Amino acid sequence: MTSIEKTMKFEIKHHDAAGRIGRLITDHGSITTPVLLPVINPNKMSITPQMMKERFGVQAVITNSYIIYQHQKLHDKALAEGVHALIDFDGPIMTDSGTFQSYMYGEIEMDPLTIVRFQRDIGTDIGTILDIFSTPDQTKEEAEEAVDTTIERAEISIPEKKEMNLACPVQGSVYPSLRTYCAKKLGNLDADMHPIGGVVPLMENQEYKDLIEVILASKKGLPVNRPVHLFGAGHPLIFPLAAALGCDIFDSSAYIKYAKQNRMIFPWGTEKIDDLYELPCSCPVCSTSSLSELKSLSKKKREQKIAEHNLYVSMSELRKVRNAIMQGRLWELVEQRASANPFLQDAIHELHKLNHVKWLEQFEPVRKTRGLFYTGIHTVHQPFFYRLHHRLVQWFDQSSSTLIVLPETEKPFSKAYADDIYKISMEYPNTDIIVDTVIGPVPLVLDEMYPFAQYIFPEVLDEETKRIRKKRWDKCVKHKDLIEWGKKPIVTDLTNEEGNIIQKNLDEKRVKSVAHMQFGSDISSVLFNGDISLVKSKKTLKIRNVFVDGKHVVSMRASDGLFTLKLDGGKKIHDKSSIPRFRVTIEDDAVPFVKEGKSVFSKFVSSVDDQLRPYDECIVVSKDDEFLAIGQCLLSPVEMSGFQFGQAVKIREHIGVN
Amino acid sequence: MTSIEKTMKFEIKHHDAAGRIGRLITDHGSITTPVLLPVINPNKMSITPQMMKERFGVQAVITNSYIIYQHQKLHDKALAEGVHALIDFDGPIMTDSGTFQSYMYGEIEMDPLTIVRFQRDIGTDIGTILDIFSTPDQTKEEAEEAVDTTIERAEISIPEKKEMNLACPVQGSVYPSLRTYCAKKLGNLDADMHPIGGVVPLMENQEYKDLIEVILASKKGLPVNRPVHLFGAGHPLIFPLAAALGCDIFDSSAYIKYAKQNRMIFPWGTEKIDDLYELPCSCPVCSTSSLSELKSLSKKKREQKIAEHNLYVSMSELRKVRNAIMQGRLWELVEQRASANPFLQDAIHELHKLNHVKWLEQFEPVRKTRGLFYTGIHTVHQPFFYRLHHRLVQWFDQSSSTLIVLPETEKPFSKAYADDIYKISMEYPNTDIIVDTVIGPVPLVLDEMYPFAQYIFPEVLDEETKRIRKKRWDKCVKHKDLIEWGKKPIVTDLTNEEGNIIQKNLDEKRVKSVAHMQFGSDISSVLFNGDISLVKSKKTLKIRNVFVDGKHVVSMRASDGLFTLKLDGGKKIHDKSSIPRFRVTIEDDAVPFVKEGKSVFSKFVSSVDDQLRPYDECIVVSKDDEFLAIGQCLLSPVEMSGFQFGQAVKIREHIGVN
Repeated sequence: MTSIEKTMKFEIKHHDAAGRIGRLITDHGSITTPVLLPVINPNKMSITPQMMKERFGVQAVITNSYIIYQHQKLHDKALAEGVHALIDFDGPIMTDSGTFQSYMYGEIEMDPLTIVRFQRDIGTDIGTILDIFSTPDQTKEEAEEAVDTTIERAEISIPEKKEMNLACPVQGSVYPSLRTYCAKKLGNLDADMHPIGGVVPLMENQEYKDLIEVILASKKGLPVNRPVHLFGAGHPLIFPLAAALGCDIFDSSAYIKYAKQNRMIFPWGTEKIDDLYELPCSCPVCSTSSLSELKSLSKKKREQKIAEHNLYVSMSELRKVRNAIMQGRLWELVEQRASANPFLQDAIHELHKLNHVKWLEQFEPVRKTRGLFYTGIHTVHQPFFYRLHHRLVQWFDQSSSTLIVLPETEKPFSKAYADDIYKISMEYPNTDIIVDTVIGPVPLVLDEMYPFAQYIFPEVLDEETKRIRKKRWDKCVKHKDLIEWGKKPIVTDLTNEEGNIIQKNLDEKRVKSVAHMQFGSDISSVLFNGDISLVKSKKTLKIRNVFVDGKHVVSMRASDGLFTLKLDGGKKIHDKSSIPRFRVTIEDDAVPFVKEGKSVFSKFVSSVDDQLRPYDECIVVSKDDEFLAIGQCLLSPVEMSGFQFGQAVKIREHIGVN
Repeated sequence: MTSIEKTMKFEIKHHDAAGRIGRLITDHGSITTPVLLPVINPNKMSITPQMMKERFGVQAVITNSYIIYQHQKLHDKALAEGVHALIDFDGPIMTDSGTFQSYMYGEIEMDPLTIVRFQRDIGTDIGTILDIFSTPDQTKEEAEEAVDTTIERAEISIPEKKEMNLACPVQGSVYPSLRTYCAKKLGNLDADMHPIGGVVPLMENQEYKDLIEVILASKKGLPVNRPVHLFGAGHPLIFPLAAALGCDIFDSSAYIKYAKQNRMIFPWGTEKIDDLYELPCSCPVCSTSSLSELKSLSKKKREQKIAEHNLYVSMSELRKVRNAIMQGRLWELVEQRASANPFLQDAIHELHKLNHVKWLEQFEPVRKTRGLFYTGIHTVHQPFFYRLHHRLVQWFDQSSSTLIVLPETEKPFSKAYADDIYKISMEYPNTDIIVDTVIGPVPLVLDEMYPFAQYIFPEVLDEETKRIRKKRWDKCVKHKDLIEWGKKPIVTDLTNEEGNIIQKNLDEKRVKSVAHMQFGSDISSVLFNGDISLVKSKKTLKIRNVFVDGKHVVSMRASDGLFTLKLDGGKKIHDKSSIPRFRVTIEDDAVPFVKEGKSVFSKFVSSVDDQLRPYDECIVVSKDDEFLAIGQCLLSPVEMSGFQFGQAVKIREHIGVN
């Protein structure tokens, strides 16, 4: 039934949470996601698309093909000169199809194929099928009908798209299984992009808990390589959370619709100008006029100014989201927004559920360039902490049965406790030392590894964080004998030799523990099976390079205490670990390029160890398991396998052609 | 020693938390507080003061008299033409004295009297004495010495001020008792304004917990009627919290100092431009240029642009603070800011301490015009909730020994539970009904009273809020028998007459309970001692007017379910309550004016019932306890007694001259 016309080019450039910085290529230019497409009413453009681009930094817009179709003059001009000429915009244009109109105003007169062909013929970059809007108050049966019709319409519409990209919205009301079903069905079709439809009523009623269930259920069903659009989402309040769940595109007429009602959009919500006393905003509108000046304008001029304000704020919020993804701080931004809205709080509480955390964890990068900031009760529930705890439990499984516990102090702990460590090691040889911190038990030998040297938490913990901390603490040390250190001072005279032995043991323990946490215990034992020697920084005395049997296997990065893999380390892993562990396997076509050090592109990825995570170290092999290179994963396994565009692995060292 | 030259005019216009919207009058115009005075370097004005006023909405600036004094050209011009001509600014100018220079660069050559006379002679609106900067790391003895010298210098400087307003900074390092001592001593002198000095190191190190202890200790010692300046505070992160504690003035060179280091100020912190990937801000600089454009500018132009950004953001944050005070949402803003910074979290935790809550509570308005939003774990610790709980405990002391408990449902509860209420009243006559809500037990008869109809909390509570909720719940109902309703359906056939009796009883209970919560049980019993009859809204069936023995004593406001007092109600209270309960007593001079309905000005307030709070109803009497009028308090008792300017009570009804 369907025929492959073309596939929309979409690639992931950066990761944080399940959110991503993407690049979407259209015939009218590329778009950096997450992105907001302002809605353009072709009948009335109070801010023209060209002005949007020049003054507001708008990358792409969305307009309504149904409205254009219905108005004879617009209809004819669009067909004759194209939609780009019609609204005078040379960037990417998406069009909607009338579905929302049918939801707002009831039955519309439109045939699904006619509107798709019309969108194609007017040169839309991304058209949308005429799907059936399923409302949150529908019964499951009603929603199923909407879903079935939507899928049918997608099936018949796709062969018509030709050069146009086509968006096929996921429907299914508030029924997660139905959303996933619809997403899977549409995912099997040759669609280019997937809006999540029928969510405007949820957003209008601030039912964010339902909204995120809908987003997650849809995401779980959709192919990972297609951009996801949260249809009708135009309020900055929801941008960070929706982006964190992997929504790439937003659109909205809120900027103008709210302006008509004298309502101003802010990152924390919406305010009627009559409820304000001053303009609590730094945008060009609010920085150059006072509230009373704004109020004294004519209705038309005031609408215009408020629309501009709304657009400035919305665009800057998207910049904030993209910046947060790049900085690895998207969850922080999410929690800050939630502090302004109790309904968002409920939505984030929902994310604590294990099935959601597990899904989110697979996209979560293994390291971030910034400190890990406490932003409230949700911080320790972040997928990053879930994974960290999971790996810590494994470390504790292999630690000594007695543990020495030190109280939290200045970081790094091993520096602050330098004297004690020697004393403890003399009195309790082969006994692991841990520090009792606000984020739980921290093995002393991991104290320079992200995030144990980088977390910034309040001194006084909230009860929620305390509860989780206690739970994790108990899980780690439940079968251990704990000895609290610090009560009895011990005077120990160490010979140089004794000191050196203790330090060497600690260093080896550190190396193995970091590798255990970072790579897993299987890879750690393979990597360090042999005679270990270290090169340390003369200045900081920190471990820099690790040699095993004379071969340089890993280096330790000073900024976050994590290892980068060296070629000899990669070979060791390759020789001793079983397939598919630690491997990204590539198609034969790409083998010569990777041998020469070129990046691995997703389209050439054949299979991936599903334990790898974004920014993890990995080895790259051919389908015959020939060792080719070591590098850094840029995507999660499911993305490496699923994407057709963009890089999957950045090669750090390669074996060379011969 | 001191002679009264003049007093700076400062009045409070609005209240929220211990923060206030104030008006400060100088010879060069009035200032609305909280306000930020950007620091002007008279040697180098990258943004001129005039430009600050016109483009950035700056109300007043601060410059450094020590620098002007030291530079011959500036010195001579300032003396000849005045400081306003020197920096070309016609608005209010404050000058600093060189204290900060002595902290930064060690001993400076300046005599305390010379610099005060110089400031006076160059026409500064607000000068500053040459105080001694006490650093956080000083011993108590060292800090005591700084305090003593500061007080001495204030004593000798004040007689020199003449027409100039003079700021005398509170010093005392991090020793609260010393801060309070210094504040009290300075408060006894004829100073006009009080900076809190020596706090820059605390802010630089993000030691916000110490900072708020310093602010609170200083505030507790200072006269309530003088503006308080947090010296050197220029980062928006701290504005909301400092304003909530009653700081009126901020100043800072941060906008330009940070710009020189390529650092951009944001409400949530500071970022180096090299750590950014996009400009996460809506200000005119960030909305009209991209990060890469900004980075590619020449050093000088980039500095200028970043300084402008920093100033736009800082000024808009002050608008946000003032707007939040007017909207009664300052604590919400404080908590939102804290979600971006763990050190601010610690500071707010410190505010939970009972002595701080009690001090803050006296300034907290009794009602707000907006819903009460949950913003996180600190919400239930707000002084408003502390007071609410305190009053609820008193209500429960007088309630029936058995209580019927209903689960939380849609608000208002009495509407949602209309049927149940009749059934309960038949089966359990004279038994009070309460609703088990997220904010604790809510008596059903209070369900329309602020905040019980207006709170918006998440469905899922965090553990911290749960803990406080449980504590408060237990305290309210510990001696009660609780019956959970809803398990057994009862079929009751009520006659009309029975229904009417039940409704009448509930209405009377509601009227007395609201008055109990709002005015106290003593006033409630005085007010409703007699035959009660009600006028209800025909449309909403809500109580509108309450008559006792045929006299209209109170009306109920539809928006928040609180009473406004009527003249006959005021008379009843006056006749039956003992002095000073519910009274604002005024000087004889003002009696004829208040009898005619003119507002009570603070300077004519003789004494005030210290149980009254901002926006409470009150009665106004003469010193002979002649009843004059009823009205609404605009200030807290300590402010009504302490201020020389501005309104204390807005009169609603008055007895007339005859």
